[in-house]
Amino acid sequence: MISEVIKELASYVNSEIERLLSYGEPEGLYRAARHYLMAGGKRLRPVIALLSAKALGHDYRRAIYAGIAIETIHNFTLIHDDIMDEDEMRRGVKTVHTLYGIPTAILAGDTLYAEAFGILAKSEAEPVNVVRAIGKLARVCVEICEGQYMDMSFEERNDVSEEDYIEMVRKKTGVLIGISASIPAILFGEDEKIERALWNYGIYSGIGFQIHDDLLDIAGKDKIGKDWGSDIVEGKKTLIVIKAFEQGIELETFGKGRASREELEGDIKKLFDCGAVDYARKKAREYVELAKSQLDVLPESPARTHLRELADYLIKREY
Amino acid sequence: MISEVIKELASYVNSEIERLLSYGEPEGLYRAARHYLMAGGKRLRPVIALLSAKALGHDYRRAIYAGIAIETIHNFTLIHDDIMDEDEMRRGVKTVHTLYGIPTAILAGDTLYAEAFGILAKSEAEPVNVVRAIGKLARVCVEICEGQYMDMSFEERNDVSEEDYIEMVRKKTGVLIGISASIPAILFGEDEKIERALWNYGIYSGIGFQIHDDLLDIAGKDKIGKDWGSDIVEGKKTLIVIKAFEQGIELETFGKGRASREELEGDIKKLFDCGAVDYARKKAREYVELAKSQLDVLPESPARTHLRELADYLIKREY
Repeated sequence: MISEVIKELASYVNSEIERLLSYGEPEGLYRAARHYLMAGGKRLRPVIALLSAKALGHDYRRAIYAGIAIETIHNFTLIHDDIMDEDEMRRGVKTVHTLYGIPTAILAGDTLYAEAFGILAKSEAEPVNVVRAIGKLARVCVEICEGQYMDMSFEERNDVSEEDYIEMVRKKTGVLIGISASIPAILFGEDEKIERALWNYGIYSGIGFQIHDDLLDIAGKDKIGKDWGSDIVEGKKTLIVIKAFEQGIELETFGKGRASREELEGDIKKLFDCGAVDYARKKAREYVELAKSQLDVLPESPARTHLRELADYLIKREY
Repeated sequence: MISEVIKELASYVNSEIERLLSYGEPEGLYRAARHYLMAGGKRLRPVIALLSAKALGHDYRRAIYAGIAIETIHNFTLIHDDIMDEDEMRRGVKTVHTLYGIPTAILAGDTLYAEAFGILAKSEAEPVNVVRAIGKLARVCVEICEGQYMDMSFEERNDVSEEDYIEMVRKKTGVLIGISASIPAILFGEDEKIERALWNYGIYSGIGFQIHDDLLDIAGKDKIGKDWGSDIVEGKKTLIVIKAFEQGIELETFGKGRASREELEGDIKKLFDCGAVDYARKKAREYVELAKSQLDVLPESPARTHLRELADYLIKREY
């Protein structure tokens, strides 16, 4: 079971996170910086890096600094995104700025950002490859900022197309998974064809992952969760909504900030009835299939199988 | 004249900034990210890096990526600090968050942050040295966050000592000048004694620079500037104020948020009369002398002389 593989690798990741990201002084800064990181999580990005190292025939432990650097970047983006989106809760815990205030939350993210590059610089690999990996991670971080900016600006635009959405999601979510999968190829000096295939595996998986995430907002199991339908009332231009708007569907609660359960159910029914939900499901599946096909350049191995299964897992998870 | 040397090197830095930090898409993000960077500035940090490379006997152009990476980090800290301090103006221009909003300002800083590491990774030097330089810059960025956090928390503390202040300033201002001076030694593989001397040159210069900056707030030439005395009304624990408080001096306007010109003049007179201003001036001078003495390990050269003069310049500038 892929979920067991993920759990086992995640437990190794967690022990290394505790070793590499200890609590420094001033205490208040580090408490804020470690808030999400120590609250757990599936560690999907470092797990992908470790599986990718294995699939390339290396000891997966040699990719651990890279994996944790990427997880640290991921956590920095969560802290800053929560400030920008004014979110008060994240997966059952209060957001960093809600607990510690915006100035401390900005600094907490900034601290993780630097720590990530510091950790990556410790990688056990040829220095010339480490420098390339750092350059690539820097580029990825710039693209994440571009993606987040696009996401914010979509809320004020009425002409967002499917293409715009995919480009936004590629940057906001795809590239960090892309580098998770390809960074072992960079560090171990694999040829460019392999690196590009793993990069694309991550990009396509990431797009599928994000579309699935959007689906969970309205079609998730836990319909009594207080966040159910929150993308709609917040006016997020998800693929589902874009497809519905293309057909002239009007949503009563879209961007209204708040809505009754009845109003929301009415709107969500429209999204199902017009086929937008099915369309998004089909697209998520297509991207994941495209991701898996990239792995054909690698020799058959248990790790390669796990990477395929992991891509499937990304669009099956229910939370 | 050192100011001429600075101007000449700064003009080279500016042309390389334009080449390396172009405007990408989305336009709104890059306009915000480039706002301070393109508004000019003395480029003291990259100039120090270039002079240090020269003093080590190298073509100074080989330190340009490092210098610009550091200037980019400096600019990212300005954008985020202005959000945290809720400042509306910076050197005659509106602050980034005032112009573009807090979410965009956070992202603008985050974009520069990544670009800085990307630019440093392009350095023309042995990869093993580039990796070390990146690790060191990452560590410096963590310390800057720690320093900014200390600075913010001082506002709520009544027991800030001179030692606390120096530690805060070392992190908030010193380390970035420390790495400006020492990064060429890292990149060119100089021995550790040289690297440490240049690091200390930067640290001590930076502390002197910051004390001088605090002095300008109350003793600057331009007493009609709207920011005159702003550290006092904002309740900043500068060395001057710490020394006055040690003597039991009470300031009417301290931390009051606003004050009349008469009240402020009364408080500032007290700071002069009790000797706190003279004490701070003496300390700034001592740190700069300490900085200059570090350079004794380098062979005599025009660049070494310029580094000495630059340290003096840091506590003579009037704005």
